[in-house]
Amino acid sequence: MQRVTNCFLQQNDQLLMLKKPSYDWWNAPGGKMEPGESVYDSVRREFREETGLALERPHLRGVFTFITMEDGLTANEWMMFTFEAFGSEGRLLNESPEGILEWKEKQKVSSLPMAEGDKAIVEHILSNKGTVYGTFRYTKDRRLLDSRFEQSTSYYT
Amino acid sequence: MQRVTNCFLQQNDQLLMLKKPSYDWWNAPGGKMEPGESVYDSVRREFREETGLALERPHLRGVFTFITMEDGLTANEWMMFTFEAFGSEGRLLNESPEGILEWKEKQKVSSLPMAEGDKAIVEHILSNKGTVYGTFRYTKDRRLLDSRFEQSTSYYT
Repeated sequence: MQRVTNCFLQQNDQLLMLKKPSYDWWNAPGGKMEPGESVYDSVRREFREETGLALERPHLRGVFTFITMEDGLTANEWMMFTFEAFGSEGRLLNESPEGILEWKEKQKVSSLPMAEGDKAIVEHILSNKGTVYGTFRYTKDRRLLDSRFEQSTSYYT
Repeated sequence: MQRVTNCFLQQNDQLLMLKKPSYDWWNAPGGKMEPGESVYDSVRREFREETGLALERPHLRGVFTFITMEDGLTANEWMMFTFEAFGSEGRLLNESPEGILEWKEKQKVSSLPMAEGDKAIVEHILSNKGTVYGTFRYTKDRRLLDSRFEQSTSYYT
């Protein structure tokens, strides 16, 4: 099963976003987990590879299940683990191997061109404080059929 | 990839534990995720099936990666998502379809017969307040080769 990790790095009310060439869609930097890798190691490795930045204290904010439907059946399933961080070390790459990197105003991020499910994820992560759980069903041509969110908060806040 | 969810249900300084017949090892109740299911739906379904109890406000506390090594190579990989809850509705089953259910003193739980990795997970979850990330490498005959933990805490506490 494909598993992806990414991170919302926030600084001065801005979010570091990446525009991948496919579909011209924006999203938080991240990428595929490697076999045997923990979600925590994966997000730090992927973020560094895509941005040049070492994340400081990333914290898991969301666990998402994506399903592609074909002829009424589940054709493919993958998961995404979304972290959040407020600090990083290193120097932002001028050019990412994966696409265009830009700091975007937090409040305007969800109006960027984005996969419909990713837009909902950005909104949920930025407007909540706990952990978000989501399920998304897509058609083969990337149209969102439906989505569902749950959330929970720590007992130690 | 096999994925498992479970939950540490805590009440009056006790933890609800399940002893599965295989190996006579104790662990928190839970079980295998179904295709297309979110981690949140899975833990509530599995916990209800195994205990009769509907979890109230389960919160994700740990994401773990397990690897079985064979001849120096990764032979199998699976993930576990561990939740925590402090309340439930319904009536505890007298007999679980999966094994023996018992409330155990929190402080004594880690001295129960348990897979070595699970013991470390119990200790980390009970002694920390944030989210725990772990990686475990096992031999084919369930001997723990090594493990590693990371943790992070919410930015909103």
